[in-house]
Amino acid sequence: MSRIGVVLSGCGVYDGSEVHEAVLTLLALERAGAEVIWMAPDVDQAHVVDHATGQVMEGVRNVRVESARIARGPVRDIQEVAADELDGLIFPGGYGAAKNLSTFAFEGEVCTVHGDVTRLVKQMHQAGKPLGFICISPVVAARIFGGEIQLELTIGSDPEAAEGVALMGGKHVECAVGDLVEDVAHKVVSTPAYMCACTISEAATGIDKLVNRVVALSGRQQVA
Amino acid sequence: MSRIGVVLSGCGVYDGSEVHEAVLTLLALERAGAEVIWMAPDVDQAHVVDHATGQVMEGVRNVRVESARIARGPVRDIQEVAADELDGLIFPGGYGAAKNLSTFAFEGEVCTVHGDVTRLVKQMHQAGKPLGFICISPVVAARIFGGEIQLELTIGSDPEAAEGVALMGGKHVECAVGDLVEDVAHKVVSTPAYMCACTISEAATGIDKLVNRVVALSGRQQVA
Repeated sequence: MSRIGVVLSGCGVYDGSEVHEAVLTLLALERAGAEVIWMAPDVDQAHVVDHATGQVMEGVRNVRVESARIARGPVRDIQEVAADELDGLIFPGGYGAAKNLSTFAFEGEVCTVHGDVTRLVKQMHQAGKPLGFICISPVVAARIFGGEIQLELTIGSDPEAAEGVALMGGKHVECAVGDLVEDVAHKVVSTPAYMCACTISEAATGIDKLVNRVVALSGRQQVA
Repeated sequence: MSRIGVVLSGCGVYDGSEVHEAVLTLLALERAGAEVIWMAPDVDQAHVVDHATGQVMEGVRNVRVESARIARGPVRDIQEVAADELDGLIFPGGYGAAKNLSTFAFEGEVCTVHGDVTRLVKQMHQAGKPLGFICISPVVAARIFGGEIQLELTIGSDPEAAEGVALMGGKHVECAVGDLVEDVAHKVVSTPAYMCACTISEAATGIDKLVNRVVALSGRQQVA
């Protein structure tokens, strides 16, 4: 059974993990026969957004604690997770990837990435294990590897995010909502999901493909 | 196109809507060709639970505002929703149904139900429109109709919740996780989902059936 880590960044598209993408990732992983290891940084969110209005609201929320709403229980502190526990690693989208896992939403191409996210992603890559990035989260991969490797990544067709990926040293590839881009040499796959999707079904199609590809590349089992 | 209302109660299994059930309901409704109308009461949650520990934590959160994390945008105040706008109504589970939509979690069979939840459910029933209740939410139906109609409902096989349904005047029917119970005379369907499910796939099977049945009973279109 493949052990696939899923890195959450809160609970809600505007200040955390995109809820549908995270749930669809779980559903696809379970149907592919994989074991899911939830993890998140144990830090406060950059801010809290009222999802009814889109406006920043009062309050302080912890990324790992809020992520537990999606996981329905404990979420591991990413600081404690080592690559040898995992066969693959997937990042759902949501602004949390660009606000809590990195500072891309605030600082663009000069953003920083949370230290343990960088450490775990690099360890996985060095071990030849697959990485999957959904929606806006490929900016995290572009930033981590940008100085060393020009990864092929997609965030769909959004010009601003695509430019960000390129400025950080990635190679942005346009991609339809239900498809994925694979950097074969580096076992990195990405899919646009809600960067393009108008409906949850559209997001599901690409996420199913990405999850099945990560599980197949994890080498633990064959996936159709 | 069927217009199906989905009543949310927050965002998180322990103090709001069960996130997976709500997302699976949306996915199934979209795949059945229905339009989704999200709604929730505009009230504060009974409390806020740290989902990593299960303990009550500090803070005040609004049910409708937190529900918007699942909806990815505005959620209507249920107070403003009339039955003639809808062809069917579905309640995902999560303790929010027993804490925010009703007081069942705190008061058991002598619980009260939010006034506009009661009003809308009764209007839908009087109009001959189908109602769907997932997980723990059938306690809401049992309380609303208990004095008048002995509805056939399921919350799976949990003895305490089943006794609660019976004490409120419902007829509890045991049900496997992937199946549903239908009160044919009253167009009320229910499925246990996470009352029994160990995995999201198990919950999805029953929720898909319930959603397809509600859409079929709504009379707007044929569903396989």
